[in-house]
Amino acid sequence: MSLLVIGSVAFDAIETPFGKTDKIIGGAATYISLASSYFTDKVNLVAVVGGDFPKSEIQLLENHGINTEGLQIKENEKSFFWSGKYHNDMNSRDTLVTELNVLENFDPIIPESYQDCDYLMLGNLAPQVQKTVIERLEKRPKLIAMDTMNFWMDIAMEPLKETIALVDVLIINDEEARQLSGEYSLAVAAKKIMALGPKTLIIKKGEHGALLFQEEKVFFAPALPLEVVFDPTGAGDTFAAGFISYLAGQDDVSFENMKRAVIHGSAMASFCVEKFGTAKLIGLNQEQIDERVQQFIDLSRFDLVNT
Amino acid sequence: MSLLVIGSVAFDAIETPFGKTDKIIGGAATYISLASSYFTDKVNLVAVVGGDFPKSEIQLLENHGINTEGLQIKENEKSFFWSGKYHNDMNSRDTLVTELNVLENFDPIIPESYQDCDYLMLGNLAPQVQKTVIERLEKRPKLIAMDTMNFWMDIAMEPLKETIALVDVLIINDEEARQLSGEYSLAVAAKKIMALGPKTLIIKKGEHGALLFQEEKVFFAPALPLEVVFDPTGAGDTFAAGFISYLAGQDDVSFENMKRAVIHGSAMASFCVEKFGTAKLIGLNQEQIDERVQQFIDLSRFDLVNT
Repeated sequence: MSLLVIGSVAFDAIETPFGKTDKIIGGAATYISLASSYFTDKVNLVAVVGGDFPKSEIQLLENHGINTEGLQIKENEKSFFWSGKYHNDMNSRDTLVTELNVLENFDPIIPESYQDCDYLMLGNLAPQVQKTVIERLEKRPKLIAMDTMNFWMDIAMEPLKETIALVDVLIINDEEARQLSGEYSLAVAAKKIMALGPKTLIIKKGEHGALLFQEEKVFFAPALPLEVVFDPTGAGDTFAAGFISYLAGQDDVSFENMKRAVIHGSAMASFCVEKFGTAKLIGLNQEQIDERVQQFIDLSRFDLVNT
Repeated sequence: MSLLVIGSVAFDAIETPFGKTDKIIGGAATYISLASSYFTDKVNLVAVVGGDFPKSEIQLLENHGINTEGLQIKENEKSFFWSGKYHNDMNSRDTLVTELNVLENFDPIIPESYQDCDYLMLGNLAPQVQKTVIERLEKRPKLIAMDTMNFWMDIAMEPLKETIALVDVLIINDEEARQLSGEYSLAVAAKKIMALGPKTLIIKKGEHGALLFQEEKVFFAPALPLEVVFDPTGAGDTFAAGFISYLAGQDDVSFENMKRAVIHGSAMASFCVEKFGTAKLIGLNQEQIDERVQQFIDLSRFDLVNT
């Protein structure tokens, strides 16, 4: 099934305890479309870059089967740039630089060929822009998933809630769930957030796994205990990508399939953190992914009686 | 199979955001022996209390089938007393009062009738006392599990390591694992800690579940996403109790059975936090426990293909 991905395509400069990079390719939609290319055939990208964005990187996305017709190139402007430094525990980071550049006036134009959109992934962006994308689709997709971040809760809570009300699945982390709901208990937070509209909520807990809530149902996906987390940048986007593209690839939005989708999202995120930026998401093969998913099964499977 | 439990039997005064208690019954060995009584018949307690400890509370332990022959009563001394206050997030607490009293010179005397000990649970105590218990057993138990805390790492690291070297299973929390190993990654910490001696390591992560390590194998048990954690006191002891008493009840120390034991420990801990102190561990029935264990299965079970 076709998956429409919207989000940033950008430059990042990252510093971790293991090293630092110059400007490398990043952005939510870059991670999402690359990771999604492993699970569904038709990935349609909507984003904007400046004239400084290398054509070779756009070619790389196309080599992964990603349709870049909706990638606007503003020749006389600069691409979005983010720079950050991770603390030693890798669970927190400081933003050093944020240059919005082309994102400042991003008008998300949906090419006509994207209008058959079955699944929609709204990567982290201003909630007003995310809402515009939904409004510009002639038919409602089968499933709309949305990522966001605390930044929008600080400066645009009302527009954010309006957009959240329109989506099927909200994907946020534990801190964001607490801020959005005003509740410390994630079980209570989940109820309050689902009352805003989304039937399904995923709360990502980083190294502690992820919780999938739907009505009264709850599923917990563990995270692999990794010896090294080299660079967490993009792990959340990659998780969301694995989730929605697995659903799109199977064309099955049942709760049982969402459980599998969360496991596939977790597996893809576990690859993402092994190298700087998107490096590990390039050129994976099905055998590697299957092997990683099997590790998640081995990690959490038990039988109540001897079999 | 018989389970020997050693640890504190004491008074606690607890303050949480939900309320506060006067002196109530607490102590690691109280939680461990009460929770263990649901899984194995023969629970033998070794501990010490002062003359101030109510006979009715000893009777309550006996009503749960716990053998208190090894509970020393120092008529002219006072019982161990701990008082603490939990922060709003329930994940951290301040110790307000610690009065060692009878624990200061605790000599763990093992009654002759306890010498058939098959399983040994060393609750949190000075590591030298824990070691003395092992030395005083005429035959080595089939399995020795040990709890400890950061306090002993601060003031008695060498005796602690000597005791750790003698046990089969070490049960500690994530912060303690990091302090003991000097490693942030729990996967790396686990390897270093198992190199100290224990073939099996359990790292408790509170609301984030627990990890079971053995050689190259790893198993992750989730925690239930609870709406209310009323009082976390004793949750770690109760977890350890569920673990070792399930092994003792089944008399099976295979890795597969340890997975089930970790789930049973998690289930018992999830009961413990629902009320102040030991209140919730009194008078549970098998149906309630089975139902809770089933919730853990439902929480983490998925099938890779439709069944």
